[in-house]
Amino acid sequence: MSNYVISFAMMNRLPLYLDYLLTLEAKGIKTVSATMVARDMGLGEVLVRKELSVISGKGKPRVGYKTDSLVKDFDKFLHVDKKTKAVIIGAGKLGRALLGYDRFKKFGVDILAAFDNDVDKIDNKKIFSINKLPQFIKDHKVEIGIITVPKENAVEVYNLLLENNIKGIWNFAPITLAKAPNVIIKQQNLALSLAHLNVMLKNEK
Amino acid sequence: MSNYVISFAMMNRLPLYLDYLLTLEAKGIKTVSATMVARDMGLGEVLVRKELSVISGKGKPRVGYKTDSLVKDFDKFLHVDKKTKAVIIGAGKLGRALLGYDRFKKFGVDILAAFDNDVDKIDNKKIFSINKLPQFIKDHKVEIGIITVPKENAVEVYNLLLENNIKGIWNFAPITLAKAPNVIIKQQNLALSLAHLNVMLKNEK
Repeated sequence: MSNYVISFAMMNRLPLYLDYLLTLEAKGIKTVSATMVARDMGLGEVLVRKELSVISGKGKPRVGYKTDSLVKDFDKFLHVDKKTKAVIIGAGKLGRALLGYDRFKKFGVDILAAFDNDVDKIDNKKIFSINKLPQFIKDHKVEIGIITVPKENAVEVYNLLLENNIKGIWNFAPITLAKAPNVIIKQQNLALSLAHLNVMLKNEK
Repeated sequence: MSNYVISFAMMNRLPLYLDYLLTLEAKGIKTVSATMVARDMGLGEVLVRKELSVISGKGKPRVGYKTDSLVKDFDKFLHVDKKTKAVIIGAGKLGRALLGYDRFKKFGVDILAAFDNDVDKIDNKKIFSINKLPQFIKDHKVEIGIITVPKENAVEVYNLLLENNIKGIWNFAPITLAKAPNVIIKQQNLALSLAHLNVMLKNEK
């Protein structure tokens, strides 16, 4: 599995697979085949067969998978059992929105806290002073840092996270961060997502 | 230009091009070639040449582009001059974060207001009752609807937007909306973006 590059398209299908499987479980349907999944979800059978085998190995010929163990393998794939710890840097509106969003846990990531240098935002419950970040990362074995500070502060925050051995960066600041060894950076530019929709819209006319 | 399919990768480069060009302008550099851009931005020359020609047509041989008119063409490409009007449905934390984010304007979209059915959230300045949505869309010629309601309400909101002739949907609810004619849907699943980073991280080890 570790050699298989998981496409973003496949990641997008995971919750749909899961929702579907949970519906089957609720209906008491004990086994499921790739053919069934493909038909019910309107996907190509070759694709479904490949993706289910990435998640759960090959199914039994003519039977497929046990529904409950397939659900467990999805959870395992998403590391729901052993959640990755994350922190947010920048407790502005976006940072606080992400902090309050409970759907991340379902996908294997636990956002523990946010950090900011603005004393008005610090409540010492979920939002702490940026000074406490290094110790917090050490104490809680935090692996992911989510950057929601303004563009001007993003590089400084990025360097701070690197110094504290963060392994994954989810960056919302509209700036390209320089690659560093042993770190995976995921860029999330919301303004550009909307701009992309807008350009598609305008070019349709 | 309208026949050219703009890749998301290209959209991601647009602000980097723009930042670079504005730096040149600030330095008083009046002309710029694809070769220069490619070298300074660390991109392939063939790619840059192609992308600049999509934005601004072919440059002059041996000279390239006038810096100021290239900047103008970027703005034009992003429809910054005539902004597309958008509204947000769902004034929770995420909706309010997007409402307060001023970077969208730079990319040609003006988010005018948010709508909610929770009276506690309505201030009648920027956040209005959902009942006022149809008239607002008509009055302001709104073309984009941004869905930030919970999963359970997303389909209802989507249908309401379709009934009111919205042309583009930016959907943050974790649910796949059924395609409809004359509407472009852009799905934004933040939990999955983070899950994707997490899976990459785990598979690196």
